[in-house]
Amino acid sequence: EDLKKQKTMQTLDPYSSDPERHPVLRINNLKPFNAEPPPEILSDSFITPSAFFFKRNHLPVPQVDPATYLLQVEGLPGGLLTLSLEELKTRFPKHTVTATLQCAGNRRSEMNAVKQVKGLNWGIAAISNATWSGARLRDVLLAAGYGPDVARRAGHVQFEGLDKDVTGTTYGASIPLNKAVSEEGDVLLAYEMNGADLPADHGYPVRVVVPGVVGARNVKWLGKIIVSADESSSHWQQNDYKGFSPGTDWDTVNFKSAPAIQELPVQSAITAPADGAVVDRSSEELTVKGYAWSGGGREVVRVDVSLDGGKTWQVAQIRSSEKGQAPEGTPPTGRAWAWKLWEITAPLPPGAKELKIVCKAVDNSYNMQPDTVAPIWNLRGVLSNAWHRVNVKIREDEREE
Amino acid sequence: EDLKKQKTMQTLDPYSSDPERHPVLRINNLKPFNAEPPPEILSDSFITPSAFFFKRNHLPVPQVDPATYLLQVEGLPGGLLTLSLEELKTRFPKHTVTATLQCAGNRRSEMNAVKQVKGLNWGIAAISNATWSGARLRDVLLAAGYGPDVARRAGHVQFEGLDKDVTGTTYGASIPLNKAVSEEGDVLLAYEMNGADLPADHGYPVRVVVPGVVGARNVKWLGKIIVSADESSSHWQQNDYKGFSPGTDWDTVNFKSAPAIQELPVQSAITAPADGAVVDRSSEELTVKGYAWSGGGREVVRVDVSLDGGKTWQVAQIRSSEKGQAPEGTPPTGRAWAWKLWEITAPLPPGAKELKIVCKAVDNSYNMQPDTVAPIWNLRGVLSNAWHRVNVKIREDEREE
Ligand SMILES: [Mo]
Ligand SMILES: [Mo]
Repeated sequence: EDLKKQKTMQTLDPYSSDPERHPVLRINNLKPFNAEPPPEILSDSFITPSAFFFKRNHLPVPQVDPATYLLQVEGLPGGLLTLSLEELKTRFPKHTVTATLQCAGNRRSEMNAVKQVKGLNWGIAAISNATWSGARLRDVLLAAGYGPDVARRAGHVQFEGLDKDVTGTTYGASIPLNKAVSEEGDVLLAYEMNGADLPADHGYPVRVVVPGVVGARNVKWLGKIIVSADESSSHWQQNDYKGFSPGTDWDTVNFKSAPAIQELPVQSAITAPADGAVVDRSSEELTVKGYAWSGGGREVVRVDVSLDGGKTWQVAQIRSSEKGQAPEGTPPTGRAWAWKLWEITAPLPPGAKELKIVCKAVDNSYNMQPDTVAPIWNLRGVLSNAWHRVNVKIREDEREE
Repeated sequence: EDLKKQKTMQTLDPYSSDPERHPVLRINNLKPFNAEPPPEILSDSFITPSAFFFKRNHLPVPQVDPATYLLQVEGLPGGLLTLSLEELKTRFPKHTVTATLQCAGNRRSEMNAVKQVKGLNWGIAAISNATWSGARLRDVLLAAGYGPDVARRAGHVQFEGLDKDVTGTTYGASIPLNKAVSEEGDVLLAYEMNGADLPADHGYPVRVVVPGVVGARNVKWLGKIIVSADESSSHWQQNDYKGFSPGTDWDTVNFKSAPAIQELPVQSAITAPADGAVVDRSSEELTVKGYAWSGGGREVVRVDVSLDGGKTWQVAQIRSSEKGQAPEGTPPTGRAWAWKLWEITAPLPPGAKELKIVCKAVDNSYNMQPDTVAPIWNLRGVLSNAWHRVNVKIREDEREE
């Protein structure tokens, strides 16, 4: 594998046509490109600007000509349906959804701190929120002949990307059929992100957006849709992106024993202050900011913040309507696809030399985050959603100096 | 309130017509009747026999004559629909669902051990699993004129019980309209439990069964169904059965600030051995048994068990098909309404004098249980789903004695 890669790079670098990226991004891997923004950028705005949205590529970014782009839809009674980009945009109503995407490996670095795992060392910012527009997958499947008969024989919708490795293997994933065809599922074949054409790193010209579901199933540079009795046979569906017990290691793991990650569990993290920050005693109070989100359309209903390592807790304020960018009111039950930004301003506790800041979120199924990392540690370092902890020093003012 | 109760009891005990109950039940409150089975009975069978199924009554059990029983359905374009028991049974297809019900207060005693809460001191057995048969609520609502227009103005389906307090106030609750009308919601107007007429304690002649949702919304002795823009205005919907931050006390609580509990979070507990049990060293191995379940139709995909207080973990075996009572294969995604019984047999660790047994479950959204009780403590003691812990002593064999 490594030898092959080396040889290919000598002849032609498949990453040479990758797009330019914003220099503020923190790069976890260059080829394929994987990068996250500085955490404090996330809490600047409800909608993450596309340039700062975390990038998680598995393969080189393919160059796709929109004029010749064709999307294929297979496995339905209508036979093979082929759609040009123009047809996708004009034959189906344009639908807009604000949805947070999160990488399965977000916060993996905290698992690495417990015991080494296999995977990119993501911080807390492999999560971002954007507005996506496109055709509903449901509408396209109906146009290709989807009906109740299909639901009896098929259970999954597979997606193939146009991104390929040197052997020609494309990125692939699948989602349950009921999510794909549900009116409330809001699955999109998106051609716009934040009101503009999809950027190259986010799947230009078309990607799948599966709200509430792990990033890995939101296939970019979409080439083919296959309705099937089976899940995707791809490496990423079968032998990756699954959760295991902390006692399972690479010698004992049986990838067939765990389900492919789809909906993600409740999550939150502190974006400011940063771990290790120093606060002056003279500032008297401290503002803590962060994000919270849950998978499956479950709405975050509360975020608890502790300044003493989890002994006492305060309820944070949800910043849901700031800057007029957030939707008004509450989303319909089960369709809360977007994160919540939160903050809390608290007086510095008298006498304290250090603050052990902790946050944990609760969703509307009242699921909570686990307290600690070790008991949810898993060999791939996915699903890292223990309480997020940030330690801050308080510096007493020393006028004499 | 207390004076009023006392006076009523002097004139006529409204509980005098309550049914007989099985003597093995552990009574938490007599009037109204609240009782749970010994935990080890729960792991005896996938389907809990009705006599052992936990009983959670809020009011006296009403005596309902099946010949004159009428169910009213209000708030739909067809006008008031009134159904006799016979009509409910014959006009609508009979649908059967195996669903676990759990009281919001299950495992409250563990919260009481941290700090006193208000509520019945339930152990770990305010949860049981049964087979329910009846008409689908969806079918009844459609017969009463439900259509897309209704969904635009209404958001909730309210239920009123025939059980009343001395002032005539009935028990009431509501669920989201989309759960009620969804084909995949499986909400029943049940007239059978485990293949027989509903027992008096479980709602004879008709109760609502809302799979995946907290017991309190599964209204028994159902008298009225109201489709409405609003949630039920009942005490139990508005000012009870809600979760709060551990920092919230009775002086600061604002019941409007939290959503009514509907779907419950992932849960598991150890039914055997009991806490404080003594195991002989000569037995060489120990079998640990328990249950695991999650709300919202999320399937439990793994149960981790530790014998050393959470340092190391083993994966328990799911006993899903024992005795032929469990459904074959996996339930459709999002419709896993029944619990899983699990067990694990492990050798007694050499030298150990005590085992700190812990269990935690994972559902198919990969939600996990929180590690400890204190950070999820809340003033009503609901949603108690931290890791369950049982300590067992190992007795070395002393032949000399
Ligand atoms: Mo990912
Ligand atoms: Mo309950």
